[in-house]
Amino acid sequence: MTRHDGRAVDQLRPVTIEPNYLMHPEGSVLIQVGNTKVICTATIDDRVPGFLRGQGKGWITAEYSMLPRATAERTQRDSSRGKVNGRTMEIQRLIGRALRAVVDLEALGEKTIWIDCDVIQADGGTRTASITGAFVALTLALAKIHETKPFRKFPIVDFLAATSVGFVAENGAVLDLDYPEDSAAAVDMNLVMTGSGRFVEIQGTGEEATFSRAELNELLDLGEKGISSLIEIQKTVLGDAANLVGMTKEEV
Amino acid sequence: MTRHDGRAVDQLRPVTIEPNYLMHPEGSVLIQVGNTKVICTATIDDRVPGFLRGQGKGWITAEYSMLPRATAERTQRDSSRGKVNGRTMEIQRLIGRALRAVVDLEALGEKTIWIDCDVIQADGGTRTASITGAFVALTLALAKIHETKPFRKFPIVDFLAATSVGFVAENGAVLDLDYPEDSAAAVDMNLVMTGSGRFVEIQGTGEEATFSRAELNELLDLGEKGISSLIEIQKTVLGDAANLVGMTKEEV
Amino acid sequence: MTRHDGRAVDQLRPVTIEPNYLMHPEGSVLIQVGNTKVICTATIDDRVPGFLRGQGKGWITAEYSMLPRATAERTQRDSSRGKVNGRTMEIQRLIGRALRAVVDLEALGEKTIWIDCDVIQADGGTRTASITGAFVALTLALAKIHETKPFRKFPIVDFLAATSVGFVAENGAVLDLDYPEDSAAAVDMNLVMTGSGRFVEIQGTGEEATFSRAELNELLDLGEKGISSLIEIQKTVLGDAANLVGMTKEEV
Amino acid sequence: MTRHDGRAVDQLRPVTIEPNYLMHPEGSVLIQVGNTKVICTATIDDRVPGFLRGQGKGWITAEYSMLPRATAERTQRDSSRGKVNGRTMEIQRLIGRALRAVVDLEALGEKTIWIDCDVIQADGGTRTASITGAFVALTLALAKIHETKPFRKFPIVDFLAATSVGFVAENGAVLDLDYPEDSAAAVDMNLVMTGSGRFVEIQGTGEEATFSRAELNELLDLGEKGISSLIEIQKTVLGDAANLVGMTKEEV
Amino acid sequence: MTRHDGRAVDQLRPVTIEPNYLMHPEGSVLIQVGNTKVICTATIDDRVPGFLRGQGKGWITAEYSMLPRATAERTQRDSSRGKVNGRTMEIQRLIGRALRAVVDLEALGEKTIWIDCDVIQADGGTRTASITGAFVALTLALAKIHETKPFRKFPIVDFLAATSVGFVAENGAVLDLDYPEDSAAAVDMNLVMTGSGRFVEIQGTGEEATFSRAELNELLDLGEKGISSLIEIQKTVLGDAANLVGMTKEEV
Amino acid sequence: MTRHDGRAVDQLRPVTIEPNYLMHPEGSVLIQVGNTKVICTATIDDRVPGFLRGQGKGWITAEYSMLPRATAERTQRDSSRGKVNGRTMEIQRLIGRALRAVVDLEALGEKTIWIDCDVIQADGGTRTASITGAFVALTLALAKIHETKPFRKFPIVDFLAATSVGFVAENGAVLDLDYPEDSAAAVDMNLVMTGSGRFVEIQGTGEEATFSRAELNELLDLGEKGISSLIEIQKTVLGDAANLVGMTKEEV
Repeated sequence: MTRHDGRAVDQLRPVTIEPNYLMHPEGSVLIQVGNTKVICTATIDDRVPGFLRGQGKGWITAEYSMLPRATAERTQRDSSRGKVNGRTMEIQRLIGRALRAVVDLEALGEKTIWIDCDVIQADGGTRTASITGAFVALTLALAKIHETKPFRKFPIVDFLAATSVGFVAENGAVLDLDYPEDSAAAVDMNLVMTGSGRFVEIQGTGEEATFSRAELNELLDLGEKGISSLIEIQKTVLGDAANLVGMTKEEV
Repeated sequence: MTRHDGRAVDQLRPVTIEPNYLMHPEGSVLIQVGNTKVICTATIDDRVPGFLRGQGKGWITAEYSMLPRATAERTQRDSSRGKVNGRTMEIQRLIGRALRAVVDLEALGEKTIWIDCDVIQADGGTRTASITGAFVALTLALAKIHETKPFRKFPIVDFLAATSVGFVAENGAVLDLDYPEDSAAAVDMNLVMTGSGRFVEIQGTGEEATFSRAELNELLDLGEKGISSLIEIQKTVLGDAANLVGMTKEEV
Repeated sequence: MTRHDGRAVDQLRPVTIEPNYLMHPEGSVLIQVGNTKVICTATIDDRVPGFLRGQGKGWITAEYSMLPRATAERTQRDSSRGKVNGRTMEIQRLIGRALRAVVDLEALGEKTIWIDCDVIQADGGTRTASITGAFVALTLALAKIHETKPFRKFPIVDFLAATSVGFVAENGAVLDLDYPEDSAAAVDMNLVMTGSGRFVEIQGTGEEATFSRAELNELLDLGEKGISSLIEIQKTVLGDAANLVGMTKEEV
Repeated sequence: MTRHDGRAVDQLRPVTIEPNYLMHPEGSVLIQVGNTKVICTATIDDRVPGFLRGQGKGWITAEYSMLPRATAERTQRDSSRGKVNGRTMEIQRLIGRALRAVVDLEALGEKTIWIDCDVIQADGGTRTASITGAFVALTLALAKIHETKPFRKFPIVDFLAATSVGFVAENGAVLDLDYPEDSAAAVDMNLVMTGSGRFVEIQGTGEEATFSRAELNELLDLGEKGISSLIEIQKTVLGDAANLVGMTKEEV
Repeated sequence: MTRHDGRAVDQLRPVTIEPNYLMHPEGSVLIQVGNTKVICTATIDDRVPGFLRGQGKGWITAEYSMLPRATAERTQRDSSRGKVNGRTMEIQRLIGRALRAVVDLEALGEKTIWIDCDVIQADGGTRTASITGAFVALTLALAKIHETKPFRKFPIVDFLAATSVGFVAENGAVLDLDYPEDSAAAVDMNLVMTGSGRFVEIQGTGEEATFSRAELNELLDLGEKGISSLIEIQKTVLGDAANLVGMTKEEV
Repeated sequence: MTRHDGRAVDQLRPVTIEPNYLMHPEGSVLIQVGNTKVICTATIDDRVPGFLRGQGKGWITAEYSMLPRATAERTQRDSSRGKVNGRTMEIQRLIGRALRAVVDLEALGEKTIWIDCDVIQADGGTRTASITGAFVALTLALAKIHETKPFRKFPIVDFLAATSVGFVAENGAVLDLDYPEDSAAAVDMNLVMTGSGRFVEIQGTGEEATFSRAELNELLDLGEKGISSLIEIQKTVLGDAANLVGMTKEEV
């Protein structure tokens, strides 16, 4: 049985990543995954947070937000509500942690990279699109530094992308859920993986439901396939900068 | 002497307005004024604030925000700082008040229109671009309602656009200041005017400087010219919907 | 047709300014404009905000508030609501900006002046009364410093006062609106001007209304007249200290 | 040994209470106790808090604040700090509780009285001056209601005033401490008492010090004397309205 | 190689659950997992949140907090910081979601259950101990209702417990990490599973590290074993109430 | 007439104090006064607040909180409400002030002691139990320092305990009110006293009631008796550490 938008169960939505989307940030992209659109930027700050000062290491931190009308119903701004909601906090912690897993913070040196992911339009999968886009924005920013002031070792050690998988009633296990599928899913799982096929994050959740070990394996198979395709797209967009990823000291 | 970007003193930057930019909102545009880019959306809400309940009148309210890297230096999010700053509050009050001046709130009926202006990229004039873009988003949203459930009188009674004028050292009075000009300006004035050439708002400020009555008149002349051009652009973008603006009961 | 309180259209309400109203502040006044009463104080702080440190320049910043029962209906305190409302922010930014326009911040040296305007009783025109009173409190505070530790150039370069003008249905253009007039006004304009007749701020707003260029000129004529009278009153109150205003290095 | 301002140890500072100080509130006074000046207002609200709804009883609640320059050093506004500090909370809870002790909340009926005490100038004893002044503002407000819509029983059942007592090194036990005395006191006690000489509140605190039972009795004797004088002043200020206090149903 | 506290790699710490630990809540326990101590309570509220009103369904929501000295270094209270931190939000969302997976919200009826998990002493695994303890508190609370007002179907459909697994340098994959192990772990995974061996949540995170599919399977094997033991302990503690879990309508 | 729980009017509830209740803090106890249970901890911090820096003196500050289900009805957390309520602020200020009265801050040296009192179960008298328990936690923490790094003079100069007294309708003056008595009391007084029988704090409040000088004396007599018993219990719990309290330089 085909999905409501005609995709096969193991098919990603169309993905485009527009590099250098904005004039001010050191790195930026507009990533579109189907109707989901996110602006991801990377900002270089030559200071580090207090807990890292004087250790010769850098840090990566992320913020995530949605425009009020990214969604079908208008969402109240966090600034009006006076606090950041729990879902937003979870997502921005996830984005930062995921990116740090493929960055050599010592090779980065005493710098903070601020990642900002702002969802312009939401149709499911905004957190995974944010990670996939943010990886490109981050690589662009560091490649730009590298041009004028080369790193001894390029700080990004592997590619990184993310997607969602889940169980949707009529279709069983599916890859890259859009909003209608996500709302109906009994099990929802976000996967973050590297270019070498290793896991960075697995977040699987039964929504008033549970799943067996066999079902888990079915989801992981789908996810691995999707992430591998996303990383190919990242390589194309990055062009020459893609060659910097994973370079050892000798190569740089 | 020509301006730093080659414009004449009475020349606007290139302006484009992309209608229906987002899939979810009732009305939306991406407005670009030079390098300044703002997403403006209009959301229809069938309730009104408490102070208007049961009076048969509607309301228009606006929120304004900038993405953190809309600017050359990253700006901290209001949600991180836990409060909206004073500049943001001034701007969103201005946008709402300006739009209400050309809307017949009784013809609108008991509805609230939420206007959201989110600056994607800032290069001066974000508040005036927001007003000019928001007018189009608002008209699109009301025209959409009008298709299926016609108003007895179309609630928008006149066109509305905004621009800035100011005194910049080497060039004297100039129209539509970009960020470098705005930073250097001794006097900075925002004007909001209607299609029939009447004023809605004049906000003129000496920045550690003052200005004479003659200088004021010079600025007003420039502003009237610029706003008239902006309204021509709005009419082109709106197409048939432009004809609804100012329609009396008989015509609708 | 006379106004509801018997004034001519170009007549100010009775104005009194009581200098040195409080025992603690470096400068203070109680200004009364009709029934509007505001305590204005100026506090000298020998530090400057971070963005000015080490530049040999000073700064002036203002805060504005109303007692809960300054108004006919009790207003909730900002501290209970946990945030400062938009109107308050606009007003305190206006007061600070207006005063800075007549102060030579380099002559002031590395000092911050805190201006506090607390409305004890409100009957329209609280922001313009605040500016007019704050100018006197500021001058008193700097004159006091000057007595014991003379400035090489007195930092206040010109007088400064403010009033409101507007269109009220039955009376047309009027000067110095009280609360009943302000509530009914179609157009409301606040003007801040100097002793030499130059503009510092023009903030004109149509309240669900618009105004023509000719109507604008009518309002400006009225405002100039009123501000000139207010500055005469300031000079009387300041006595000898008035002579310090505008003194060049040679004279001081 | 006389006190630093020449008073005897059992002598109050000069006290004045100006009734009907403001035009808007139902009841208001400016109370001055030496250099301490507080504006106290009483606002009648025809609703009661949720926990009292439908019980036929009223409520009295108080807020207390200081203008930033009521003090020798400028105090940051609660609204800038985003929260009310602990000292302020203690004081406003004390004021409300004290007034409720002399009010028959059933005779009051379903009404909330908001008491606002705003300190214009502080020189010690601001909380006790607030209570003494607020009692007069409250009585004025209820007497005003009583004129047009008489209570079956006047809700205020007794007079109420407050003062401070304490041990100050060179003078021993003293009445009505001003700021220099309060800063130096080893023991500080606030007393609230009724017209019939009963206690409503005793708050005695050793400041890094302790006190014996005999010393406690010495302080209570002084306090009783001072409060009795303050109540005489209240009666004079209230004039005829003083007769309403304590009236039973038959008398009203 | 044995672990720093002498445990085998697949061994839980000693676990005790003291039921009915507090006098006021409908259900409460003190759970101890090694040195980690958490008070878990369940509160029945006969209202539901707005989004569920009138649907005949209930809701379960959780809050989580640590006493300031639950930890080796004192932690600032959320109430002093004025906001809940991101880690706390993640944990309380996880607890609520996990419990809802084994509760039939329709069988529960229009009630909200508030789960409070307060960590008295922290030594690793506070979130998994909270889930394991909260399940018992919840069952106790519903069993108590069931005594006087039996459910047609008992709302808890299966047992639920949680533990952590991870990779620690010298020991490889280990079960139930204490704080020193957790701090040193390269990969950290929290598992929530049911009595029938199905997954509710998998949250696996590389801490500046990644993991392979084979390593993932090794962790899952360990976790399944540990959770099965925890559920045996829950059954013993619950006694007769354990029989209610999973009862169908017919049996109840 | 006996009290509802069978006690005599001058009888305390059963009191137990479990020392070293937690593994992390420098000093900790679980105090139980009847059904009221409070965890009190003392944390040593080698910094002092800004206002004491460089003066060779220390500081003691306290925080107080209740678990949500310490009470019969669930209480919302301060962190959810975004602010600390007035009652909490009053209590934590009281605890800190009371402890400081028996500590020689100069003998303490440049250290801050953080006292945390967390109410696990509430049945009246939580603030006085907190003071009585916190005194023991503080003494344990300082005795621990003293073992390895002896003070020249032990900083605690006297014992300190607290209890409540009040007037309850049918029983008259009673000692150590539990929650049902406290709710019904017309007059409620908290007393903090030292081992040598001197007062540190008296906080007596008529709850919509008043009290005479004779009634005050009756309450003080009861309170003195109760506090004397509490200090005996503290001495037993502290064992050898009790001998350090009040030691002069020579003795230490």
